Amino acid sequence: MATYTLAAIAEHIGGELHGDPQGIISGAAEIDKARQGQITFLANPKYKDFLEHCKASAVIIDAKAGAQPAQDYILVPDAYFGFLQAFLLLNPQEPLLSPGIHPAAIVEESAVVGENVAIGANVYIGKNARVGNNTQILPNTVIMDRAEIGSDCLLHPLVTIREGCRVGDRTIIHSGAVIGSDGFGFAPHGGRFHKIPQLGIVVLESDVEIGANTTIDRATMGQTIVKQGTKIDNLVQIAHNVEVGEHSVIVSQAGISGSTRIGNGVMIGGQVGMVGHISIGDRAQIGAQSGVAKDIPPGEVYFGSPARPIMKTKRIEAVLNNLPELRKKLDQLQKQVEQLSREKSGQ
Amino acid sequence: MATYTLAAIAEHIGGELHGDPQGIISGAAEIDKARQGQITFLANPKYKDFLEHCKASAVIIDAKAGAQPAQDYILVPDAYFGFLQAFLLLNPQEPLLSPGIHPAAIVEESAVVGENVAIGANVYIGKNARVGNNTQILPNTVIMDRAEIGSDCLLHPLVTIREGCRVGDRTIIHSGAVIGSDGFGFAPHGGRFHKIPQLGIVVLESDVEIGANTTIDRATMGQTIVKQGTKIDNLVQIAHNVEVGEHSVIVSQAGISGSTRIGNGVMIGGQVGMVGHISIGDRAQIGAQSGVAKDIPPGEVYFGSPARPIMKTKRIEAVLNNLPELRKKLDQLQKQVEQLSREKSGQ
Amino acid sequence: MATYTLAAIAEHIGGELHGDPQGIISGAAEIDKARQGQITFLANPKYKDFLEHCKASAVIIDAKAGAQPAQDYILVPDAYFGFLQAFLLLNPQEPLLSPGIHPAAIVEESAVVGENVAIGANVYIGKNARVGNNTQILPNTVIMDRAEIGSDCLLHPLVTIREGCRVGDRTIIHSGAVIGSDGFGFAPHGGRFHKIPQLGIVVLESDVEIGANTTIDRATMGQTIVKQGTKIDNLVQIAHNVEVGEHSVIVSQAGISGSTRIGNGVMIGGQVGMVGHISIGDRAQIGAQSGVAKDIPPGEVYFGSPARPIMKTKRIEAVLNNLPELRKKLDQLQKQVEQLSREKSGQ
Repeated sequence: MATYTLAAIAEHIGGELHGDPQGIISGAAEIDKARQGQITFLANPKYKDFLEHCKASAVIIDAKAGAQPAQDYILVPDAYFGFLQAFLLLNPQEPLLSPGIHPAAIVEESAVVGENVAIGANVYIGKNARVGNNTQILPNTVIMDRAEIGSDCLLHPLVTIREGCRVGDRTIIHSGAVIGSDGFGFAPHGGRFHKIPQLGIVVLESDVEIGANTTIDRATMGQTIVKQGTKIDNLVQIAHNVEVGEHSVIVSQAGISGSTRIGNGVMIGGQVGMVGHISIGDRAQIGAQSGVAKDIPPGEVYFGSPARPIMKTKRIEAVLNNLPELRKKLDQLQKQVEQLSREKSGQ
Repeated sequence: MATYTLAAIAEHIGGELHGDPQGIISGAAEIDKARQGQITFLANPKYKDFLEHCKASAVIIDAKAGAQPAQDYILVPDAYFGFLQAFLLLNPQEPLLSPGIHPAAIVEESAVVGENVAIGANVYIGKNARVGNNTQILPNTVIMDRAEIGSDCLLHPLVTIREGCRVGDRTIIHSGAVIGSDGFGFAPHGGRFHKIPQLGIVVLESDVEIGANTTIDRATMGQTIVKQGTKIDNLVQIAHNVEVGEHSVIVSQAGISGSTRIGNGVMIGGQVGMVGHISIGDRAQIGAQSGVAKDIPPGEVYFGSPARPIMKTKRIEAVLNNLPELRKKLDQLQKQVEQLSREKSGQ
Repeated sequence: MATYTLAAIAEHIGGELHGDPQGIISGAAEIDKARQGQITFLANPKYKDFLEHCKASAVIIDAKAGAQPAQDYILVPDAYFGFLQAFLLLNPQEPLLSPGIHPAAIVEESAVVGENVAIGANVYIGKNARVGNNTQILPNTVIMDRAEIGSDCLLHPLVTIREGCRVGDRTIIHSGAVIGSDGFGFAPHGGRFHKIPQLGIVVLESDVEIGANTTIDRATMGQTIVKQGTKIDNLVQIAHNVEVGEHSVIVSQAGISGSTRIGNGVMIGGQVGMVGHISIGDRAQIGAQSGVAKDIPPGEVYFGSPARPIMKTKRIEAVLNNLPELRKKLDQLQKQVEQLSREKSGQ
């Protein structure tokens, strides 16, 4: 836990301070939990009344929340983000592993390891592999031959980086993730499946995060790529030759089939499935459990299995909900019409 | 394989013996496979006729099955459970690993390890971690700093327990499971996702079982918790701050999103998906592949995507099954009505 | 990269050479990427025009494509497969690991290891385990007691083979896969779940491939089996006592519940879920995300959740797509009929 003046915090988060620049802050907490000496935040005006009983010594306030608390406050354009920055300033995170190579780690002689790197027990780093400065590699993780890991990365325990794959800077990979497993490619012939060699690699660019037990297959030829800033949750499957754009999000247990292209800023919900060779436009959003078999244009929100524009799926679902009643109505109507027809012919 | 008298078995399983207390039993098998000298069971009266040709020397019988076999028998309230107890008595399970710390295991000096513990090759036990008595930790598993494992636990190979997480007694964790990976939390700002530090832990209480390659994320703050007696299958995703109650069951490939609360005695089918921040009541049951976006009351049985009370989903499904015929009927009716209208106006 | 004469290539792939037997080939590439001195292929007549500008020195041609290129060519019954064979001849794959046992591997004294085996760093091979000739076991993989691995297998890093399981020859297992985790079996009694011991094993026959982070549970008694030539993708769950036939394919994130039997030559799409105790006939195909709760006959193509014959599901989906319009039509019709009835009674 660190301690800063309000002036220092305001400068760090780029906000406008209203109050005592020399005020001392030693912690950050949510509005209903903050104590004296701590800083909190108000992003949503509907929680404005909480300020009255809030014990925090200062508040980070969203300029558009329009609140003027009794406490000292800092105005910023995005109070939640400002709070996150202040929180990280006040709670500097210790590295999970101290720099140095554990005596029980195996680093092949031809591997090149940067400065200030932390390599845990039972880690294996293969021939001609490279690890950038300040990167932490936790126990029992395996980096195979010729793989390249950038600087300031964090690889948790029991990660696999297969041969030749490349990871950018500041990328985080969680336990059990497999980067560069073979793509699932076989040529059927004579009643058997013959393995198509998977000679490409996986590239994870910088500032990417890969969840626990997620699998990303290497390309048949060329690259499977996850571009900078994209965050992938646990147990996700990314098949060979997939391209995931920048600053996209893929939630847990989604699966993307081979050669599909995901744009930038795309949001893919949990358990979504996608066929191969399609294209998802920039900023598209796909609801949880959707099944996507066709391209989705940029900016569209799709949902359902099969995935349709979300409003269409919701309209269909509303009718579905009353489907038994709809059938009854139809049966009744049929009787009425028969009755009318009978009367007609009886005339 | 151990040998017991019928009297000893009857006492062990809390049953009422009808037959020779000194009868010797040296094995347990199903009714159609049991040989002489073995004990079998009859839980369901519809298999009563099997007794006639059954070679077992004794039978554990459900009191309510109302059978009186020629063999010696033991009456119990739950014959299947009685059989399971007798089976375990007659087939005592050897530990997978003998007590002792393998010379190739790495146990940090500040870690505290109980008595009679078995620690396999290439295991890593971090700083200030604790392992209770009689616990087995199989090869290549990683227990990070400050994690605490209770007594009589079994951690299979290649498990990750992240820093600070806690595991109760008699809990079993299968290979590849990841306990305490970071929750998937990011603050969007300026077109990028900024990682929200995940400072909480995971608590697995006692008598829990976690399947292979299942992932349980640590809380943002506080705890993600799985309460006592709950059994979780393979490849399940439990997100940050989820609470799973006691004696619940979650089948393979289900995914529970952040902060959702699951009650006690809940049954969740395979591949079920749940949104975050909802609440599933005690003893609720949710069918496989369901998509749950709302609270479910205690004791209810839900099914479908979106999940509805199971009878409602089944009624809808029955109509769906005939949907093409329903449309035809409607088209036909429309023609009839047009005909009637035409005749009307033709009058 | 190796170099062969056209005659040698034609013989290797069993094709009929039209051209110079002494022509030298030093690589293989796709029709639009091949350079002089390389060989390419033409399987689909619609790409015939590419041949004109193709720089390859020779072409492997599907006999039924009916093309006669200017280049030397080799006629075969299946040009894609012929190309794959030629590619592998010209690009012999180096083993990922050189033969020998890494000094940081732990091989129990009672384990039996064949000739020319490669065992990586931090591998653990348990008591009485067996590893066949030429098999590669990559770093940090764990093979527990009494497990048997055949010849010419490739186990990638961080694989778990649990005690007593058996793997045939030429089988490939990707990182993080767990072979032989306990089946998910519990007897409910007194409000708790009591573990049913899982005493069986998993058998993977020869020429099988298991994807990254896939889990295959051991049988309660007997065997969970995956028969020869079957290929399983990443993150798939195979429960206890399942039987998967020969030369079948299971795509990523599918889940097969306990005791279900899959025939030979079956294709199961991604994210498919199957209940237990059903039977899928030979050569059946099941579309992605399907939910299968009943037997599927041999050769049938099923799709949907619940899974139905694919044409039926497609017909239902077509109506679903217009369901809101269908309801409107029904409402309108109801009004018309009411109007007719009113006029009727007004007569």
